[in-house]
This record gives sequence, C-alpha cells and structure tokens, in this order.
Amino acid sequence: MTEPKHLFIPGPTNVPDRIRRAMNLAMEDMRASDFPELVMPLFADLKRVFGTETGQVFIYPSSGTGAWEAALTNTLSPGDKVINASLGQFSMLWGKMCRDLRLDVEDWEIDWGEAFPLERLAERLAADKAHEIKAVLVCHNETATGVTSDVAGVRRVLDAAGHPALLAVDGVSSVAAIEFRMDDWGVDLAVTGSQKGLMLPTGLGIIAVSEKAMAATKTAGLTRSYFDFAWQASANASGYFPYTPATLLLRGLRESLDMLFEEGLEAVHARHHRLGRAVRAAVDAWGLACCARRPEIASDTVTAIMVPDHIDAGAVIRTAYTKYNTSFGAGLTKVAGRLFRIGHLGKMDEVKIMSGLAAAEMAMLDSGIAIQPGSGVAAAMTALGVGAAAATDRSAGLAA
Amino acid sequence: MTEPKHLFIPGPTNVPDRIRRAMNLAMEDMRASDFPELVMPLFADLKRVFGTETGQVFIYPSSGTGAWEAALTNTLSPGDKVINASLGQFSMLWGKMCRDLRLDVEDWEIDWGEAFPLERLAERLAADKAHEIKAVLVCHNETATGVTSDVAGVRRVLDAAGHPALLAVDGVSSVAAIEFRMDDWGVDLAVTGSQKGLMLPTGLGIIAVSEKAMAATKTAGLTRSYFDFAWQASANASGYFPYTPATLLLRGLRESLDMLFEEGLEAVHARHHRLGRAVRAAVDAWGLACCARRPEIASDTVTAIMVPDHIDAGAVIRTAYTKYNTSFGAGLTKVAGRLFRIGHLGKMDEVKIMSGLAAAEMAMLDSGIAIQPGSGVAAAMTALGVGAAAATDRSAGLAA
Amino acid sequence: MTEPKHLFIPGPTNVPDRIRRAMNLAMEDMRASDFPELVMPLFADLKRVFGTETGQVFIYPSSGTGAWEAALTNTLSPGDKVINASLGQFSMLWGKMCRDLRLDVEDWEIDWGEAFPLERLAERLAADKAHEIKAVLVCHNETATGVTSDVAGVRRVLDAAGHPALLAVDGVSSVAAIEFRMDDWGVDLAVTGSQKGLMLPTGLGIIAVSEKAMAATKTAGLTRSYFDFAWQASANASGYFPYTPATLLLRGLRESLDMLFEEGLEAVHARHHRLGRAVRAAVDAWGLACCARRPEIASDTVTAIMVPDHIDAGAVIRTAYTKYNTSFGAGLTKVAGRLFRIGHLGKMDEVKIMSGLAAAEMAMLDSGIAIQPGSGVAAAMTALGVGAAAATDRSAGLAA
Amino acid sequence: MTEPKHLFIPGPTNVPDRIRRAMNLAMEDMRASDFPELVMPLFADLKRVFGTETGQVFIYPSSGTGAWEAALTNTLSPGDKVINASLGQFSMLWGKMCRDLRLDVEDWEIDWGEAFPLERLAERLAADKAHEIKAVLVCHNETATGVTSDVAGVRRVLDAAGHPALLAVDGVSSVAAIEFRMDDWGVDLAVTGSQKGLMLPTGLGIIAVSEKAMAATKTAGLTRSYFDFAWQASANASGYFPYTPATLLLRGLRESLDMLFEEGLEAVHARHHRLGRAVRAAVDAWGLACCARRPEIASDTVTAIMVPDHIDAGAVIRTAYTKYNTSFGAGLTKVAGRLFRIGHLGKMDEVKIMSGLAAAEMAMLDSGIAIQPGSGVAAAMTALGVGAAAATDRSAGLAA
Repeated sequence: MTEPKHLFIPGPTNVPDRIRRAMNLAMEDMRASDFPELVMPLFADLKRVFGTETGQVFIYPSSGTGAWEAALTNTLSPGDKVINASLGQFSMLWGKMCRDLRLDVEDWEIDWGEAFPLERLAERLAADKAHEIKAVLVCHNETATGVTSDVAGVRRVLDAAGHPALLAVDGVSSVAAIEFRMDDWGVDLAVTGSQKGLMLPTGLGIIAVSEKAMAATKTAGLTRSYFDFAWQASANASGYFPYTPATLLLRGLRESLDMLFEEGLEAVHARHHRLGRAVRAAVDAWGLACCARRPEIASDTVTAIMVPDHIDAGAVIRTAYTKYNTSFGAGLTKVAGRLFRIGHLGKMDEVKIMSGLAAAEMAMLDSGIAIQPGSGVAAAMTALGVGAAAATDRSAGLAA
Repeated sequence: MTEPKHLFIPGPTNVPDRIRRAMNLAMEDMRASDFPELVMPLFADLKRVFGTETGQVFIYPSSGTGAWEAALTNTLSPGDKVINASLGQFSMLWGKMCRDLRLDVEDWEIDWGEAFPLERLAERLAADKAHEIKAVLVCHNETATGVTSDVAGVRRVLDAAGHPALLAVDGVSSVAAIEFRMDDWGVDLAVTGSQKGLMLPTGLGIIAVSEKAMAATKTAGLTRSYFDFAWQASANASGYFPYTPATLLLRGLRESLDMLFEEGLEAVHARHHRLGRAVRAAVDAWGLACCARRPEIASDTVTAIMVPDHIDAGAVIRTAYTKYNTSFGAGLTKVAGRLFRIGHLGKMDEVKIMSGLAAAEMAMLDSGIAIQPGSGVAAAMTALGVGAAAATDRSAGLAA
Repeated sequence: MTEPKHLFIPGPTNVPDRIRRAMNLAMEDMRASDFPELVMPLFADLKRVFGTETGQVFIYPSSGTGAWEAALTNTLSPGDKVINASLGQFSMLWGKMCRDLRLDVEDWEIDWGEAFPLERLAERLAADKAHEIKAVLVCHNETATGVTSDVAGVRRVLDAAGHPALLAVDGVSSVAAIEFRMDDWGVDLAVTGSQKGLMLPTGLGIIAVSEKAMAATKTAGLTRSYFDFAWQASANASGYFPYTPATLLLRGLRESLDMLFEEGLEAVHARHHRLGRAVRAAVDAWGLACCARRPEIASDTVTAIMVPDHIDAGAVIRTAYTKYNTSFGAGLTKVAGRLFRIGHLGKMDEVKIMSGLAAAEMAMLDSGIAIQPGSGVAAAMTALGVGAAAATDRSAGLAA
Repeated sequence: MTEPKHLFIPGPTNVPDRIRRAMNLAMEDMRASDFPELVMPLFADLKRVFGTETGQVFIYPSSGTGAWEAALTNTLSPGDKVINASLGQFSMLWGKMCRDLRLDVEDWEIDWGEAFPLERLAERLAADKAHEIKAVLVCHNETATGVTSDVAGVRRVLDAAGHPALLAVDGVSSVAAIEFRMDDWGVDLAVTGSQKGLMLPTGLGIIAVSEKAMAATKTAGLTRSYFDFAWQASANASGYFPYTPATLLLRGLRESLDMLFEEGLEAVHARHHRLGRAVRAAVDAWGLACCARRPEIASDTVTAIMVPDHIDAGAVIRTAYTKYNTSFGAGLTKVAGRLFRIGHLGKMDEVKIMSGLAAAEMAMLDSGIAIQPGSGVAAAMTALGVGAAAATDRSAGLAA
C-alpha cells in the first residue's frame, strides 16, 4: 500500500512512535495470572484523565459510538425523556441513537457553529417541574464544527434548577486533550474513544460513570448485554474482562497514559490551547472564518474553516489529499462543501501544525482561494510568541 | 514488558509476521476517497470465507461477543422463543445474552463434552406446531470443551421439520479454520471474531447474514443502534462505515484474507484437520482423555485435555506459564481445574504444534502426571505420517 | 525513549513507513536455497539507480565510509598518486583516508562553498605527462556545504587530457536523489550508502564498479580482505555473500528500490530539484546566504545556510532540537557555528519541507535572527508554483 | 514475502520481540547533543559482557568479519608471523584473511571436530625462542563444527612459555551466550558480532581490545582506515562515532544488553549449557554422533550432527526448510552434506528447542534416517530434569 498521508483529521489522530512500538506485539493470554497487572492500573489512570476519583471506568472493544450506547442503555428506560442539542454531526448522531433506542429524545436543532444553549436549558428545566427529563446529553467538543460547549455551565444550570437529570457528556474529541473535570463538573457519564486525545488506533470505547449513574443502572429498563456495566464490573474487579479484550490496544493505552502523565495533563491541555490559538490566528490571517461563531467557543482540538461562498471545500480537501499527501477533515452533511477541518489534537506540536497550515495554504491557493501565501504560518508563529523574547532582547539592546 | 509466551490458547491466536507488518501502520482517514478500495473487497472476500454468495457481511469494531448481540438484536423481538444448547462456557454465555436481551431462551443443559443434540432438536421442533421457536442457536465449535457440532445436521433437522426458525451459528473458533459452508448449511447468522482463524488481534466482530435473516430485521423488535445492520448497510454500500472503523485491523484483515487464499481455504481446513488429529494422537499416547466425548465430535481447532482426578489442571497451566513460557487455555467454570486446553488454530504448523505438545508434556510431568516423556510428540509424528514414505522406500529396498 | 524528532538532517533521512514495515522482520537464513531470489534482483536494480549497465555492484555491511575504502583498496597500490579536492568535511575525510592507506594524495584545499575545480584539474592533468595520477576523487554532492560538483565535467576534462586515471565518485548524498549517470559520465567507482537517497537506516555501503576499475583490481597492491571485490564477486555470482549480510537492510532495500521505480527515477530527481529550489527561495527571502557560492552549484539534497556573523548557528540548532523537536545538521569543523543545514532528500515532499522551513524560521527567530516570520515558507510556495494555475484562471476571469 | 521460518541456524539468531520493538524506530541524528546518553553506556555494558574492566570496546557498522579485520590490521604488521588453527569453516576463513592481509600465517590443519591443540601450541611456542610469533588466533566457538576451544588453556600455555604474542579470539558465536572472561583469560582481542548471542540483526562488528593490544597499535604497520581503532577512539571518547553509525542497531543493542543483565549473565550462560546438554542428549538418543569429537569440547551454542554415511545432510536441511518451515545450518565446505547444524543460542528456551528437535526428527525421518520418533525430544526432557522433582515426590509418597 501507499505511504501514509500527513494526517490532520480530528481522529484517528497521529499515533506516536512510542505507542506504535508498544503495540507491535505478539498476542497474549487475557486470562493469564499476571494480566491484571496490566489492567488494574489502566482503570486507575483513566480516572485521572477523566478527572474523577469517585467514578468508575469501563473499557469496551468498540468505537466511541459504542460507549455512547453504553451510556444510554445502562442508565435509561424505554420512553425516558432526554434532552439533546443537535449542534453538529456527532451530537446529531447521538440524538439519532436515542431514537434508535426508543428514548423520548427532545432534539434541539442548534445552528451548526453554536455551542450548547445554557439559557434554553435553564428555561426547559424550569418548566420540567415533574422531573420528566431523565438525562441531558452534551457534546463537549463537537468535532464537526470545532465548537466546545460549557459542560461546567450545564452543571450550574442543572444545579440551579435542582434538577436530578443525569448529565451525559460526549468527550470523544476532548478527553485527554482539553480540560475535562468529571467530578468538578458533576458529569455522570463521560464518553471517549481511543483514537483522539489518547493517540491510539480506533477500537476502544471508554466511559467513566459517576456513582449516581451507577445507581441508575439498577432501574434502567433498556436492554443491554455487550455494553452492560454490571457484567464488565464483575470481571473488571479482579483485573479481567467478561469477553476477549483488545489486548494490543490495552498495551498501547498503557503507553499513551505514560506519555500523558510524563508531559503532565495540564501541560497537555496548555499545548492544545496554544496550538488551537495558533490555528485560529492563521484562519484570521487568511481572511476566513471559523465555523465556530465566537472565539470563546472555538475548539482547541479541531478547527472547521469556512471557505468563500463560490468555492467547494471538497476541492480543497481533494487537492490536499492527491497533490499534497495531506488528509483534512471534510464538512459533514449540513456543511458538506462549506468547510474543511484541521485536526490539531493528540500527537501535535508547533512544527507539525505549521506543516498542516502550509498544506492548507497550498491546497487553498490551488483551489482558487486568494489568500496570501505564508500568511497563516506567519500569524500562527506570532500567536505562538515565536521570537518574542529575542526581539525584546534586541530592542533592549538598541535602547541601551 | 516481558517477552511473549509460546501461545497455545484457542484465541487470540498467533498473529503471523506478515499481518503484524501489515498492521504496523500510521493512521489513515476513514473518509478518504480511496478508502472504499480497501473496504469493498473485504466484504466480498469474507463471504468466500463464510461460504456464502447470497449473504451479507458486517464488520464491527467489537469482539465476537458483539457480533453475537448483532445476530440477536437485529432479527428477534422481546419474548421471542429461541433454543440454545448450553454445552460449554461460550454456548452458555450466548444463552445468558439471550436472557439479558429478554428473549425467551430455552436453554438446554448438555453435558460438557457433548455436541449439539440433533435428536432432541428434532423432537422439540416436532412439538412446536405453532412455530413459536424463532431461532436455534448453535455453537459450531465450543472453544471451552473442544467439541464441534454438526451444523449441517441442524439444518437437516430444521428442514425435515419444515421449521422456519432462524439458524444462528457461533463460528468464532471455526470460521477460517475448519469447513464452514453458510449457504450449503442454510445458516442465517454466522458470527465470528478476528482473533481466531483470521489470525488477527481481537477487535473485529464479524457476521454474515442470510437474505432470510436480513428480511427478519424488518420486524425485529429488539432495540439496537451500535450493532444495527441497516445503519451499517447504508454506509457499507459505498465502502464506508457509519462510525470510525478499526482501520488497522481492516488492513490486517486484508493481509489475513490474502494469506488464506494463497494457501487455499481447503488447504487451510485440511491443515487444521491434520494438526487436530495429531494432537488427539498425543492425548491418547499420554493415556489421557479429551473432554470431547467421542473422536468424531472432537474439534480440529482446540483440544481440551482432562487431567487425572487427583491433579489440578491449574497447576499444569501455571507450570507451563511460569517455567516454560507457554500459555495454555484453562478449564472454565464447570470444568475449572479439570482440564487444560491446547489451541491449534490459525497460524500453526507441524513444528509449532510439536513445541506445544512438548510444553504440555513438560508441564504435566512437573505437575506429577506420570506420562511417558516424548510419547505425545512421537504419536503426533506418527499421526502426521512422518517418515512413512521413507520407511516404505526402505522396506521396499530390503525386500528387493 | 523519547519520540523521534522532525528530521531534517542530510542523512540518515526519514525512513518511509513502507520500508519500516518491510524491515520489521524476523531473521532469516542467508544460506537458504531461495535467498538468491532476494539478492540477485537487488544487484540488477541498483545498477539502474547508479545509471550503469556495464558496472558491477557490491553491497557491504558497512557505512558509506566503508565503501570509500573499498573503492581505494581494490584499485590502487601504496604510494599511488591520487587527486582529491577538499571542499567540505566529507571530501576532506576521503583525503584523510587516502593518507591512512598510504596513497600519495594531492589534497587541494578548496574554499568550502565551492565545487570541484575543473580548470585546475585540466592544468594538473596536462602537467602529468607520465600519467602518475592513478585516480581522481570527486565528491559529487558535498553534504557539509550543500555543493554539487560537475562529475560529467570531470570526465570531459579527463577525456580532453586523454588521461587514464580512474574517476572515483562519492555519491553518498546524491545517488537515488539527484541525477547520477555512471556510464554516461565514465565513473569508475561510484560510492553510496543506504541512509540517504535510498531512505534506509545506516548499515549498507554500496559501490558500483566499472569494467576498467574491475580490471585495476588485478594489479592493485593495497591490502584488503573485508572489502575485497573478488571475494564478494565469487559469492555474489550465485546470489550469496561471503559473510553474513545485513538481511534486514536487504529486505528494506528491496522495498526502497520498488518505491523509487514506482515513482520513477526521473520523477525522483525532479522532485528533489523542485524541493531544493524551494528551500533556496526561502533562504533568499530570509535575507541569508547559502554556503554554496553560486546557485548553479547549490545542492538539491541539502542546503547549508550561513547565519549572520554575530549569531551562533549552534544556538539555532539547539533551539530547534530542544524547543521544536527538530533536527537540523550542524556546521562541521571549518564551518562549525557558521551555518546550519537542512536535509531535503529521500522521503520528502512539499508539506514536509514546509514544516522544516517553518521550524528553521522559529528557531532562527528565537535565536535572534531578524527574519520575517513566514517569509521563507511563502517564498518556497511561490517557487513551487503553488496557486499559479488558479491565479491565472482568476486573472483570465477578470479580464474577460 | 513469506512467513519467517522456525529458525535454528547458529546466527542470525531469533530476535526477541522486545528488541524488534526497540528497533522499530524512526531515524535520529547521530550528532545530536543527547546521542552520547545512548552511546556511552553501550561501551561500558559491552565490557561487562566481554568480561573486561581494562579493555576498550569498539563498535563498527560491519559484520563480525569486519571485526576480525579490525583485530588484525590495528595490531600487526605485514609479514608478522601468526598462528591460526584451522579447525572449521570460520577459523579457516580467519586464516584466509591473514593471507589476504599479507601476514605470515602458520595455518594448522586440524581435524574438523577437534578443538584448538594446546599441546601443539606449547611445543611451537617453546621453539619460538625469538618470539617471532606475534599473535595466536583462537576460534573460541567454531560455529561450523560446534566445538568450543579452551581459551583459558591457550592463555596458560602462553604464560607458561613466557611468550608475548597477542591472543586474538573469535567470540562471534560465544560472547553473550557462554562464559567469556576476557581479563581473566588474558585475551587481547575479542571479536564478536551482533547476530548471535546478542540476539540482534547482523550489522554490528564488535571488538574488545586489551591495553596490551592498544599499545600494539602504535607500531602496527598494516594499513587501515575504516577499522582504525584510533579514529574510533577519538570520536567515541565524547560519545560519538567518526562516521555514521547504525543507530537502529545501537538502540537494539541497548535493549539486548538490558535483557542480558535482567536475566543475569551467569543465568544466560547456565541456560545455554542446559539447552546444549539437552540437544546432545537428543543426538545420543537418535544414535547419531556430534561433529565435536568429545563431549567436553561440544559447544553449548550450536550442535553439528553427523548423518549416517548413506544420507545426504542436504536432504535433511531441504526437507526441514520446504516441508517443515524450519531453517537448520548446513555443513560447510569440508563437511558439506555430512552434517547439519542446530543453533541453540540467543533467544532460546526449553520449549523452543523442543520444536527444533522435533523438526529435526521429522526431517530426518522423511529423509530416511531410521531414528525413533520422539526419542530425541524425550531424551532432551530427561536431560533437562523434567518431572524429576515430581517423580521424587511420588516415589517418596509410595514409600511412605
């Protein structure tokens, strides 16, 4: 097969060499006596990543979509009313899943580019005197639009309303990349996947479950088996799984967690913020707009860039792919052709993101978007503060 | 971490070097324009492996257990009556899943070591004038006991009774290793996983679905989303998936299928039969018994070996693991401590299985089982016909 | 260990994923009956890369330095007079090797940044009526200064003088990257290594030998054993080696040659030329100078960039390495601290080189070099003709 | 390409997964500021492996043959008299190299199967009143015949004679596998390669040099450059190399040394002795003879097995290779067709060697050698003491 592309999609993200090496393994016996030595610390360390001490973590051989299903089927019953804000492809799909599972989902159509509407939630909860709403679903970081919603804000609204609904959060493209404080934010179900901030191949659906959500499993009437928390929990307790786990990915997860902790979770978050800001500076310099309506909701892990009206964003993506060996994310369904996306999460640094910006510039120029060559790269460097210290030294020197 | 063990568990099986190489990849964009060039042939080629021309194949990021769930939730409704023969750990667990999903499972307790009871099925179907039985579940190859059931026989019984129940078959440890003829046997749902005959790491749940079973999805009332056939089918039609697939494993699957076809499926089956017979000859030579009650139901992919009454099979396994760097399968639940299992499927040849037999001999001897050293290896060689041609030459020479 | 750096040294160069995969192998028997099926085509295909039909290729487990020694010891005798132009670190070291081997080397001190002096050679040859000069050593591409010499020109001078000296060429950083025409240029000894244009790890010293040079081995009086052509040739004839070869690298070489031929050697050369020109455009835009004195001798595989007088190039390299995870080449001996080098050979494309230029910009800015951020990237894009077609379309549209 | 064979050649040996992983790396800058952090401990740790505190170690990108050349050219002068005992293919080739390098080699033709003749050496040294003999070459472990010579004994003879000749030892197939005590044995030049006891791919020639041998370099008149100790030493002193090193293999060497020290060098030696004895027990049980004339000189790293007179050993090897996917070593030159060799060094354990013995049995049986199937495996188990403790327990139990 051909060589890999320069990868700037918002997942699967680039897998670090260390992790590739750690996964280049022979198979092993998942019932071996020393297997728990691998497994038990994974649960403990994932809790750190989710920001929870009291939650319980489950790891499924599945994609993140599987963990969405785990969140719903383990805690809800047929016909339960849930709130979902459809503000992009992935929040929209979680709503679809609610319907598949015969939940009574109240699906709010939000402008793609906007974040979760806190005021609307406040109003809705106030109206729900009977507490019919059993869960509020929030997509922390909508990968399709590059918008980050305010999960802490959702918790404040729930608390202000004294509403007992479960808070279920899709953290697929946020966890392990930007700040996620499960306990502090009162998140009940926090979902992620292996192929984003955790820098692994696709194949692990991961969920952290609050004590309140675990209690809800007792009465949850939706059917479930593969994703059943209780089945997992009984095997996990001794460091095993109820069915064959994806051992290769578990070994990779071990390395991923080691890397995250070596860098430090706060440093990881800060790096994503720094790089996200640099990308947005580039978009400004190009004279283009982010799909995210306002800077304060723009995501630090993925940036969706609106192309000029007369341009097909698909052409930019195709040019990048075929001429420049570079993969960008496409606009999905509602925004197909209107935007392209640069993923900047996971294994990403200043130099790598510069190549993504340069590739975007070249593909846009070749597609007839009249940006200034190098302008985005230059703006990103400035946003990163490159040379600032040296320049200060120089001007100080001149003044002296 | 430590070096891999000599692996003789019945899955995950040894991954060939070719496949490890093929999976040692950077991530790729699962929405790329050329991604269907990988995907479409996988479906076509898996159909060959299942022995079906009219069936439809689905590939999930899951373990084989997930494909079990897909088989049930896509075709059945709550309260549907299904027959399951609990004749080992895995057939027992499929029955458990039926209960989890609120099917009305009629779970037949069969002696572990026996195969699916065709006569009993014939009687039961005869009694089911109203065709209340919606599905018959058959574990083709019970990994826990090393017993292969007669799926063609089940079909004959169903046909003889003129019974419309779906025939759902767990082929996890049979498909791609021993003969599997989905169309000829009238299998409606054929389930497998990546980590057995396909010689891949765990992480793909694969299912082949007959036209009849696809038709059943229209009225199936069980809830499903992650494993929904329709959602998969709509995306698969153009070579994509509805959510992020495990691209690494798909690349590995490509190599696996190439390897199977290069060797030839019939040759693959013949090799498994040859090696299975050799292992059973060794068991005989040791003076021990297989868990499989009769030779004609003994599995060609895994052999479960009963240890003498006064011996703990766990000690054999521990000795093999800690002293001889070798992983054997343990006896599960009902047969814990009573047997150990040698997996001989997937990447396996004459020399490799000899090392498994030798390791078993050494671990048994050290555990106090009074076998004759080398006896199993010798019997296996003889069963393989080693030296037969040369011996014939010699005796011919002597006679001349 | 830590993650790999962004690698922009002029060798070892970035190893393509395909090659890493091809080398991720178990060991094999280098005396196996089918080993020649690997070996024989390697020799034939390397001849294509060197541009020779009549030459003979040898592959040593060594670095390129070993192949230098092979070139000299197999064809020359103690005290033989040879001409060497010391115009950078590596041509200087080949001269040192001549002295080590007790050749009578006439070492011309050339300004670092200049190419092989054709006129001086013409004069020198004219003076050598007795044909005492047995060999002329030419460094085709001086990796330390980024200067390419005119090997065809050297041949013309030799021919014009009717001089029989052997023409020995160091093609370590040119072969498989820029045009190399052994037969057309009358090269007698062409040396390369695995870790440059061939995109492999270090470990193979490769040499192509003309018929004339092979004839010279008959009378060559220097001692040799490990690098002896005759010993190699006798084993190579049947597809084997006289001592254990580096089988992993041979497997990698197979993949490397496949990749080169798939792209096409001319396309490979054109790509290096395009990228080399882009890098030089960046240097111009930065207001800096290349070590290469004149554009027409500037190398398409490595660019050595002079820093301003008051700046330590070592600081740029250190900043790139520690702050930007990027490896640039240092200035060696005579030019230590005065320049840094960007390697752009082997696995390199438009997007990758942009990240190298951006990294250089960031490291220079942080080191106090007052370049315009993004200026090099922009100039490189323009040099690559990015957006030119689209711009033409636009202005045509405006005119219409 | 095809799957790797079961590998039982005496080198390259099986590369442990840990080492394959450690070498599955991107390229790195061998002039980076932190490169010495890798390099310096390698030299120190290799000294432990050679058993020297006062020696100096050099690592070349070459095969072991290159290190042979380094030993000779750095310490001897043209015409120097050296003693070499030609007792197998490799000691014979070292003698050939002496002639290539114009040393005055006194090549003793020894029966292949015999060890270095101490008495003859004693006599010869006694006769060399003028100390014309400058070096004695000893092949510690002759890979072609499976014979280990007594290096300590050679030292005793040299000391008894008060003879100043250098003691040069080929430890290619002994170092890191069987006991090697450079300082204690007064070895002056100890040569090895990466692909044997060090369990790495071919590509590193390694030599440990005593202070006496280092002193001899001052006056050594043989020409050398690539292998020059002084050039290496000057760069090694700061943790670098004078030319591009094989960084991948150095990373692999780091892992290899870690593995050796984790197991413990004495434990490594003991394991090789245990397995060597088991193989010889198998040969006895087959009714065949080792090439090694006497048990006390039989090698613990490779066993050369004489086939019956009417049998072509090549047929055994071909059958093993083509029918049983197994690589054995062939008989070389003088013993071609008369023997085959089982390598049992490096990554090797009880179970792995059983598969080698079983493969040998199957290939021999198919080739018409009338051994008892399983007899070698059984004898090897007994030699390993398998089951002994358990049997003792049983008989104790019976007596009680």
